[in-house]
Amino acid sequence: MTQPILRGYTSDNTAGTTPEVLAAIAEVSAGQAAPYGNDDHSRTVVEQFSAVFERRVDVFPVGSGSAANGIALAALTPPWGAILSHPNGHVTTDEAGAPEFFTAGAKFIHVDGADSRIDPDALRVAVHRRRGDVHSVQPSVVSLTQATETGSVYTLDELRTLAAIAHDAGLRVHMDGARFANALVALDVSPAEMTWRLGVDILSFGATKNGTMTADAIVSFDPTLATELSYRHKRGGQLTAKMRFQTAQLGAHLRDDLWLRTARQANAMTARLAAGLRRSPGVDVLGDPTANILFCRFPDSLTTRLQEQGYTFYADRWETGVVRLVTSFTHRAEDIDEFLDAVGSADRVS
Amino acid sequence: MTQPILRGYTSDNTAGTTPEVLAAIAEVSAGQAAPYGNDDHSRTVVEQFSAVFERRVDVFPVGSGSAANGIALAALTPPWGAILSHPNGHVTTDEAGAPEFFTAGAKFIHVDGADSRIDPDALRVAVHRRRGDVHSVQPSVVSLTQATETGSVYTLDELRTLAAIAHDAGLRVHMDGARFANALVALDVSPAEMTWRLGVDILSFGATKNGTMTADAIVSFDPTLATELSYRHKRGGQLTAKMRFQTAQLGAHLRDDLWLRTARQANAMTARLAAGLRRSPGVDVLGDPTANILFCRFPDSLTTRLQEQGYTFYADRWETGVVRLVTSFTHRAEDIDEFLDAVGSADRVS
Amino acid sequence: MTQPILRGYTSDNTAGTTPEVLAAIAEVSAGQAAPYGNDDHSRTVVEQFSAVFERRVDVFPVGSGSAANGIALAALTPPWGAILSHPNGHVTTDEAGAPEFFTAGAKFIHVDGADSRIDPDALRVAVHRRRGDVHSVQPSVVSLTQATETGSVYTLDELRTLAAIAHDAGLRVHMDGARFANALVALDVSPAEMTWRLGVDILSFGATKNGTMTADAIVSFDPTLATELSYRHKRGGQLTAKMRFQTAQLGAHLRDDLWLRTARQANAMTARLAAGLRRSPGVDVLGDPTANILFCRFPDSLTTRLQEQGYTFYADRWETGVVRLVTSFTHRAEDIDEFLDAVGSADRVS
Amino acid sequence: MTQPILRGYTSDNTAGTTPEVLAAIAEVSAGQAAPYGNDDHSRTVVEQFSAVFERRVDVFPVGSGSAANGIALAALTPPWGAILSHPNGHVTTDEAGAPEFFTAGAKFIHVDGADSRIDPDALRVAVHRRRGDVHSVQPSVVSLTQATETGSVYTLDELRTLAAIAHDAGLRVHMDGARFANALVALDVSPAEMTWRLGVDILSFGATKNGTMTADAIVSFDPTLATELSYRHKRGGQLTAKMRFQTAQLGAHLRDDLWLRTARQANAMTARLAAGLRRSPGVDVLGDPTANILFCRFPDSLTTRLQEQGYTFYADRWETGVVRLVTSFTHRAEDIDEFLDAVGSADRVS
Repeated sequence: MTQPILRGYTSDNTAGTTPEVLAAIAEVSAGQAAPYGNDDHSRTVVEQFSAVFERRVDVFPVGSGSAANGIALAALTPPWGAILSHPNGHVTTDEAGAPEFFTAGAKFIHVDGADSRIDPDALRVAVHRRRGDVHSVQPSVVSLTQATETGSVYTLDELRTLAAIAHDAGLRVHMDGARFANALVALDVSPAEMTWRLGVDILSFGATKNGTMTADAIVSFDPTLATELSYRHKRGGQLTAKMRFQTAQLGAHLRDDLWLRTARQANAMTARLAAGLRRSPGVDVLGDPTANILFCRFPDSLTTRLQEQGYTFYADRWETGVVRLVTSFTHRAEDIDEFLDAVGSADRVS
Repeated sequence: MTQPILRGYTSDNTAGTTPEVLAAIAEVSAGQAAPYGNDDHSRTVVEQFSAVFERRVDVFPVGSGSAANGIALAALTPPWGAILSHPNGHVTTDEAGAPEFFTAGAKFIHVDGADSRIDPDALRVAVHRRRGDVHSVQPSVVSLTQATETGSVYTLDELRTLAAIAHDAGLRVHMDGARFANALVALDVSPAEMTWRLGVDILSFGATKNGTMTADAIVSFDPTLATELSYRHKRGGQLTAKMRFQTAQLGAHLRDDLWLRTARQANAMTARLAAGLRRSPGVDVLGDPTANILFCRFPDSLTTRLQEQGYTFYADRWETGVVRLVTSFTHRAEDIDEFLDAVGSADRVS
Repeated sequence: MTQPILRGYTSDNTAGTTPEVLAAIAEVSAGQAAPYGNDDHSRTVVEQFSAVFERRVDVFPVGSGSAANGIALAALTPPWGAILSHPNGHVTTDEAGAPEFFTAGAKFIHVDGADSRIDPDALRVAVHRRRGDVHSVQPSVVSLTQATETGSVYTLDELRTLAAIAHDAGLRVHMDGARFANALVALDVSPAEMTWRLGVDILSFGATKNGTMTADAIVSFDPTLATELSYRHKRGGQLTAKMRFQTAQLGAHLRDDLWLRTARQANAMTARLAAGLRRSPGVDVLGDPTANILFCRFPDSLTTRLQEQGYTFYADRWETGVVRLVTSFTHRAEDIDEFLDAVGSADRVS
Repeated sequence: MTQPILRGYTSDNTAGTTPEVLAAIAEVSAGQAAPYGNDDHSRTVVEQFSAVFERRVDVFPVGSGSAANGIALAALTPPWGAILSHPNGHVTTDEAGAPEFFTAGAKFIHVDGADSRIDPDALRVAVHRRRGDVHSVQPSVVSLTQATETGSVYTLDELRTLAAIAHDAGLRVHMDGARFANALVALDVSPAEMTWRLGVDILSFGATKNGTMTADAIVSFDPTLATELSYRHKRGGQLTAKMRFQTAQLGAHLRDDLWLRTARQANAMTARLAAGLRRSPGVDVLGDPTANILFCRFPDSLTTRLQEQGYTFYADRWETGVVRLVTSFTHRAEDIDEFLDAVGSADRVS
C-alpha cells in the first residue's frame, strides 16, 4: 500500500505509530495477564530501560508528557519549592498548571538563555535566589528540556555544567525529554551519557512523538525516589489496569533500537528540509536545526500559497513572518521533496 | 487459531482487548491527525456517546478509572466538601487517595448499606450531616458504583431514590461505572435511563474492563461543568497528544453495540459459572450474582486443588473460605465448563 | 472589682485571658522590635519552651489549634499517607478538612477505642493496614488527643504503648494538645514525660483555652523537621509580622508555671462540680472526669430550668439527656457553688 | 512616661500597637463570650466595617496578610487560573508560595509597570492571554497592591481603569491592602471610593502595620463569595476560638477614625523625613513619596554612620546606594527630627 504524501508539519504529535508497536499491542492482547504492571511485559520493559541506560532504573509508564513532568517534579520539589526552568519550557507554558497541581503549589522561576537553553551564569544566580529566606519559595529543582521546545539541543558539556550548578547548590535535576531521542541521535551520544552520568535525577522519557501511541515513561535514576514515585503515579491516575498495553508499546519502541531509528528519520527529514529551503530564494532558515524542528522566515505569499495547497504548519505564532516546521519519523524523503517542490513552484509563481 | 483455555478469574482487568479495537487502532495510525482530541475520530466519539445516551454529552477520554473518578469528583465537590460513598467504594478504598488529590483535600464520609449498596435511609441522614456548620466538611456529592465492587447492581428505582435524596439536599451525583455496561445489560435498561434521566451528573464510563486497552471516559451530563472539566483533565495529565488512539478504542467499543455484547458475554459466563457451582457439592454460591462477579464459599481443599491446577482467583481476602470469581468478555463457555469440570474432579478426589 | 458570676459551661474557649498575658502584651507594645519572630521575646519563648520540655525544641507560634494540627500533620505524613486518629478526634471531626488541606490530601483512618482513646490492639492492626500496597493510602502518623475531646486522659503507659506501636511500624506520632496542660496536671507528670520521652514527634501545644488570647504553638521534638515546618508555617499564613504579640502571650503563660496553675484551677473546678453533682438526686455523673470536661445525665426539667436561669452548656448533643459541662481557669469556687445551688433548687422545685 | 527616640525605619511592622487596642483587649477579656466569632464584639465589627465601607460587607478576621491574600485569592481563581500581579507584588515575592498553596496551584503571571504599578496597556494584553486555550492557565484575577510595595499609590482613576479592564474580560479584582489606610489618606478619598465603587471584589484589609497587633481582615464586597470564604477561612486555620480578641483589635482600630489618624501620622512622618532629606546635601530623595515609604540615594558613608548610631533601615537591597525608610504611626516629629539631625551631622563629618 502506498502511503499518501504527508503534508502536515505542525508537530510530530500528528504522526501515527509504528508497525512494531501495533504488532506488540496485538500480541499482548491475547490471553490474560496480571494487571497494574505485574505482568511479564511490564517487568521486561524495566529490563529494557535498564539496558538502554546501562544501569538499574525505575520506570513508571504514563499516558502523557504532562503527567510525566508533573509526577517527576512533585518528587523533586517540596510544595514550597521553586522549579527553575527556561521561560519557554513546556512545563511552565503549556501544561495548564499541571506541575503546580502535582507539586501542590510549587512555583516556577524562569531562567532565561538563548535558543531556549538556560544560561549557566543566570542559573548560577538563580540557584541561590533567596536560599534560606522563609519568605520566599526555595530553589529546589532545575528542569531542562532536551531537545528544547524550539528544537535546539544542549551539548553534553552544557548539560553537565547546568547539572553541576544545580547539584552543587543542593538542587535536583529533571529532564523533560519529550524529544529525548531526537536530541540523543543529534548528539550521537548514549542515553547514559546524556542523563544520569552528568547528573539527571529523573527523566520524562518522551516516546509518543517518536513512535508510541499512548505511552511515555518516567525514568528515575535515584532509587530512593521509587516508593514516592509509585504512590504519586497511582494517586495521579497513571497506574493503569491493563498496563501491559502501554509497556508493550514501550517494549517494541526500545527493541532493536527502533526508537533511535525513528528519531534519526525525523531529524534527517528536518535536515533535508533545511537544506532544500536554504536553496530557496526568499526563504531564511533560522538557526542551525539539529533535531526535528525548523524555524524559517517565509514571505507571506509563500505561506499562504502552501497552506492553500494543504500544507499545515504554524505561521506568525512566535513572530510575524516566522514559520515552524516539525518533521516526524513518518515523514519520508518524498514527502519533503514534494514540499520543497511546492516551495519552489510558489516561488516561481509569486 | 484456537485460543487456549483461560484459567484466570481474579479480575476482568486481566483480559486483553477486542479485535475491533485492535483494528481501529491500526486504522487511525495511518497518516496524520490533529493532536489533543482535535481530530475527526475524537469528534466522532462525542457523537457516538451522545447517541448512546440520547442527548448531547461532554466526553473526556482518560487512561484509568482512577483518573476519571478523581477529575469527575473534583468538578462536583469543593475542597471542603464531603464525598458520600459506600465504605466498599473503590474511590475510597483502592485509589491511594486519588480523589483527595484531585479535589485538593475533600473528605470521604462513608454511608453503609447491604451488598455494597448505599442504604437510602442512611443517605437521608448523611446528606444533612452538619450542613452549614463551618467546623465540618460539607456533604457535596454522592458517589455510586454501578455495578458495585462486589458485583451487586442497584435497580433503577434504587438509583432514582438515592439521586433524588442527593439532589433534594443540593448535592451532586457521581456514578463510578467501572462496570457500567455489566450493570446495564444485567438490568436490561438504556444508558439514559440508568444515568441522567434519574439524576446522575457525571459518569465515569468504564471501558477498559469491558474491551478497550487504555481508554475510559468521563461522560458529563451537565454542560455547565464542561469548561471546568476540560482544565482539570488537561492539568491532571489526561489530555493526550495522540488522543485519537484512545478515542478510536472508544469508538470501536461503542460501534454496533459491541460494548453491550462484551458485557453480556461477561455476565453470561458468571451466570454459567454460578449455575454450575450451585450443583457442586460443598460449594455455596453467595448472593444472587447479576453482573460478572461471583462470591462463593469453597472448601479449603477445593481452593488449593484449583490453584494447583493453575486457576487464579482471590481466596480468603474478604472472609476466610470465601472466594471471588470474575469473568470477562474473553471467557468462553468452554473455559467455564473446564473450570466446572475441575471443580467436579476436585470434589470427587477430596 | 468583683467579677460577676460566670454561668457559661459550653467550653473553656469562652474564657478571657490572664492578667499576666495582658500585662505582657502591653509591655512588648512599647518601642520597636524586629518582625516575624526575630525579636527578643520570640527568641526567649523558645528558651522557655526548651526549659519546660527539658530539651531543645523548635517552636512555631500559631493563631489556632487547627493551624497547629494542620501544619504538624503535614510535616508528618506525605499526601498519600493515612492519619490514624480516634473517630472523635477534633482533627477529623471539627476542622472542616484543615488537615486534608494542609497535607495536600492525606486521608483519615479511624481507630476506635473506649472513652475517645485509641485502643492499642486496634492500632496494632491499623498501622499495618495495606502497608506497601500502592492502591491504598499508607499509615504514616498517629494523632493522639491529650486530654481527649471528651475529657478523658491517656495514662503515660497508654501513650507509651501507642507511640511504640506507631514507631515500631515506622509511623510518626502527633499529639493534639488543645488541653495539654489539663492532662498534664491531671496526671501530675512532666511535659517531657508526656511527650518526647515516650515518643511524641510534634505537639500541638494548646494555650488559648488555658489562658492566652490568640496564641497556640507547634512544638517539635524532631530537629530534622524544623526547616520544613518553617516553610509550611509561613506558607500557611501563620508567620505573623508582629509575632512578639503572640510570643509575649506564650512567654507570660509559661512564666512561673502560670499555665500549670490555670490548668489546675480548671480541673479543680470540674472536680468540685462533679463532687457536688454526685450528691444531687436525679443527676448521674458519667465516667470519672480527670481534666476539665464533665459529662452528666440530667433530667430534662433540670436542663431547662438551668438554661432559663442563664446557664449555658451543651445538652442532647452527644446523646439525649446527656449534658456536657466544661470549666476554665476563670471559673472560681463561687461560680461552681452557685451552679450547684441552682441545681439543688431546681431539684427541689421539680 | 517619655517614649525613647525610635530609630527603626526598616518597616512599619516593627511598631507596637495603639493604647486603644490595648484597652479593647483588656475589656473583652472580662467574663465569657461565645467562641469563633459568635460574640457581640465580632458582630459589632462587621457593622463597623459596613459603616466604613458604606455598604454591607463580609468580614473574616485573620492573623496575617499572607492568610488574607491566600484565602481571598483562592475565592477568586480556580486552581487552573492565573493571578495577574505586578512582579513586585508581595503576593508573588514574599509569601513563600502562600497563594499557590491556598489556591491549590494557581500560577502568577506578572504584569509590569512603573513604580510597582501595573501598566494598563500591559494588563489589557494580559487579561486575554491564551483565554480559552486549554493548554494554558487562564487569567482569572488581578491582584493590585494599594499602597504598593515601594510606597507608590494608584490614583482612583488608575484603579478604576485596571478594574474595568479586568471585569470587562471576566476577571475578578483583589486588592492587597497591607497599607490600605496609608493609600487612603494619601489620596484623601473614602474607603468605598477606593474599593467596591471602582470594582474591587475582595480587599485584604491590612491593620497590623497601622495599629493592631495580630489582626488583619478579609473584607468581601461580593456576598456570593461569603460561604466559600467562610469554609476556606476555617479550613485555613484562621477561624480562631477566642476571635473576640481579634475583633476587639479591629473594632478599636476603626472606632472614631483611629485607623485614619494612625495612617496620617505615618504618612506625615515620611513627608517630614522627605522634606528634611531633600535639604540634605548628598542625599537624593527618589520619586515623590505619598504614603509612608521613602526611597533615597545615600552616600555610603552616611549609611554607615547612621547605622553605627543605631538607626536601622534597608540599604543596598534594591539597588546599590539606595536606602528604604519606612515610618509608622508610632514615629513622632521628634524621632524624625533627630534622624535628620543625625543625617546633618554625618554630613558635616564626612
